[in-house]
Amino acid sequence: MSRSGKPDRPTGPGAKAAPAALPENETHAAPDRRAFLRGGALAAGGLVAAGAGLATRAAADPANLPPNVPDWSKVLGPGVDATPYGKPSEYEKTVIRRSVEWLTATPESSVNFTPLYALDGFVTPNGLCFERHHGGVADVNPDDHRLMLHGMVEKPLLFTMDDLKRFPRESRFFFLECAANGGMEWRGSQLNGVQYTHGMVHCVQWTGVTLKTLLEEAGVKSGAKWLHVEGADSAGMNRSLPMEKALDDCLIAWSQNGERLRPEQGYPLRLVVPGYEGNMWVKWLRRIEVGDMPWHAREETSKYTDLLANGKARYFTWEMEAKSVLTNPCPEVPVKHKGFNVASGLAWSGRGTIRRVDVSVDGGKNWREARLEGPVLPKCLTRFYFEWDWDGKPALLQSRAIDDTGYVQPEISALQKVRGVNSVYHNNGIQTWLVNPTGEVENVRLA
Amino acid sequence: MSRSGKPDRPTGPGAKAAPAALPENETHAAPDRRAFLRGGALAAGGLVAAGAGLATRAAADPANLPPNVPDWSKVLGPGVDATPYGKPSEYEKTVIRRSVEWLTATPESSVNFTPLYALDGFVTPNGLCFERHHGGVADVNPDDHRLMLHGMVEKPLLFTMDDLKRFPRESRFFFLECAANGGMEWRGSQLNGVQYTHGMVHCVQWTGVTLKTLLEEAGVKSGAKWLHVEGADSAGMNRSLPMEKALDDCLIAWSQNGERLRPEQGYPLRLVVPGYEGNMWVKWLRRIEVGDMPWHAREETSKYTDLLANGKARYFTWEMEAKSVLTNPCPEVPVKHKGFNVASGLAWSGRGTIRRVDVSVDGGKNWREARLEGPVLPKCLTRFYFEWDWDGKPALLQSRAIDDTGYVQPEISALQKVRGVNSVYHNNGIQTWLVNPTGEVENVRLA
Repeated sequence: MSRSGKPDRPTGPGAKAAPAALPENETHAAPDRRAFLRGGALAAGGLVAAGAGLATRAAADPANLPPNVPDWSKVLGPGVDATPYGKPSEYEKTVIRRSVEWLTATPESSVNFTPLYALDGFVTPNGLCFERHHGGVADVNPDDHRLMLHGMVEKPLLFTMDDLKRFPRESRFFFLECAANGGMEWRGSQLNGVQYTHGMVHCVQWTGVTLKTLLEEAGVKSGAKWLHVEGADSAGMNRSLPMEKALDDCLIAWSQNGERLRPEQGYPLRLVVPGYEGNMWVKWLRRIEVGDMPWHAREETSKYTDLLANGKARYFTWEMEAKSVLTNPCPEVPVKHKGFNVASGLAWSGRGTIRRVDVSVDGGKNWREARLEGPVLPKCLTRFYFEWDWDGKPALLQSRAIDDTGYVQPEISALQKVRGVNSVYHNNGIQTWLVNPTGEVENVRLA
Repeated sequence: MSRSGKPDRPTGPGAKAAPAALPENETHAAPDRRAFLRGGALAAGGLVAAGAGLATRAAADPANLPPNVPDWSKVLGPGVDATPYGKPSEYEKTVIRRSVEWLTATPESSVNFTPLYALDGFVTPNGLCFERHHGGVADVNPDDHRLMLHGMVEKPLLFTMDDLKRFPRESRFFFLECAANGGMEWRGSQLNGVQYTHGMVHCVQWTGVTLKTLLEEAGVKSGAKWLHVEGADSAGMNRSLPMEKALDDCLIAWSQNGERLRPEQGYPLRLVVPGYEGNMWVKWLRRIEVGDMPWHAREETSKYTDLLANGKARYFTWEMEAKSVLTNPCPEVPVKHKGFNVASGLAWSGRGTIRRVDVSVDGGKNWREARLEGPVLPKCLTRFYFEWDWDGKPALLQSRAIDDTGYVQPEISALQKVRGVNSVYHNNGIQTWLVNPTGEVENVRLA
């Protein structure tokens, strides 16, 4: 017990003391992990006497194998020449990016979603990173691709891919989230599945040259305050980027998780804008123009602005605020057992580093601190774990993220109070999952 | 300039002062990055006047596009329904795992190699992680798979995959290196390509339950000192594992880089033995037996022992000592330009964390510290960068890793002096690349 008489918080590797200024948790009792680990919880399904099942030490000769040895232990499988580039097991074929047919007029200007419910850790495998295109996937030949840097610079430059790779490079883990992630949820619970409510986010290790390095190479003229960045896709995707951010932590990236960018992620070159909305991470990057004013492109005026209740719109709302969601349990992953359960989820903040995640199992009445899994990196997904006892009654599960600026993830109702219900962007409200007595999980909105 | 009058070392984000006890570097001059960044180095190939090339701000109407706009900017590419599970660009189709036909009698008991020369950062994408099989890839149905834990335990247990996923889980980045990585190089330079000399290593984020947790669940009997671990493949791969390591940092893993293990990496369950030789990371794990003596399995007696010159053999040589290699330049990646170049490579240690990497461009006469890229994690690959000027003359490039135990990666001749030349395992010697005046790179052995 802690000094206050409350049960101790979990003391896993990532657990940290809560700073005084942060919300105080009225803690409900933590489950007794030791009791579970002493064996009670598995008694229903798992225990057998030794030797009843699989092959033994004397089983080298196939003829000696007991009859219940599975086929896969008896046949010589494929060799090292079978899959020069590997792929997932056939048993995992439902773990894919999914799109929603009714959401957009065409698949070329649309989105698909990362299957967060099936993932562990904080790295997203390259094949499952969500996509958002405005004119389909450009099929760019890297040998013929050029990046132009011009405008208010001393010396305009045109780079080949080889030119770019001569500069000092950096590798960094950053999450990428679409501003519209959760957008369909503004007015209430629309979609049943964390893949759809939160799946427009992924996190990989990006490698490239810093934008700052290229700007220094060209020489920025005095008075320059903005950049215009443009893609080589058929949409000619373009956005304005403030010089301050460009000189801070942006990358011109050619690799994700070690290998070259996937075509749908901007091969061969993508702008990485850590913590900012995904729409600014221009893919198939072909041009950077330096100027003294923003360009007011379509995607920062007509789109990617937040229409308020009074008819005015917020714009240039680039930073993705602190957010979190439970990915286990969730609608795709029901609760299977009463008693001890390990819940898990993801948290992130475009403003910095996740400092703490709280979880509630009673709809926000009481909160208890989750264990953060290290390394906890800035502007990166952070995996958290939370141990709880399920009594078989309806439970309302929520998580809330707190970042190192002290910002606390709000309830959706608090966001609506300020911004109304017209917007589809920047919904970082707390998600509620209802666990039914069957263990099935629903997306619900608390009154 | 530093106080000693030598040129300053690079001061990148990962650079650290060398502790006094470590080898002192006789530093040759560092290149002047600022001179490069002021623009001289790109003058030959890269500069053009603005507006000569790609589309401009007024180019929204395809009819207005200048004639040199590439096709990929004019056609609507595939949409978000095209690749539910993504794959690399066709332009990257040569970046694959490669095997060596003459190396083994059959591809089912053989190895292929990670294309290290083409990778950035420290994460290996799942499709490119090297493979080593002893009876091909087992095609295991996870619903029917069981893990048995028995022997000297209070309560033998049989786990389904669902059982295992109820326990608290952890996600950790660890490298995995085959003990035979570099083995063909013991007696001299045999293979020309870093994919073959060093490609039996990869690094992913593993997720699973700790082996310690399962052992505590079963209750280890007094006197138990060893574990026997066994796979469900047709080889029934088995090894002995000391209890001390089992209780330290081993995982029973089901995910790599967020998604479920690939079939060739042991789907659905693999033993993770951080820092130890890859042969012990038993794939398709089906059985753990607890005992009081090692099993002396084939793979720790006939194989995976190091035959010394006197006819005796070292055995139970589990830990992978500190090692490093330059992956750029290397035989697959020639030096393309005189003057400023950024070299890059990987370092790792099975005993802990990489503290420092030194690079030489003159065959080990002089060394200068490389920049380490963070996060630098224990028993994980660490990416390093090194800036140098190439004068167009033959250069002998080397790297040496130093870990936090103080261990310094040795020359191969020093290893041979102790171990002779019969072994194929645990070659962590310094690699030498000869850069020819053409820029082409060869694998060479210094006398």
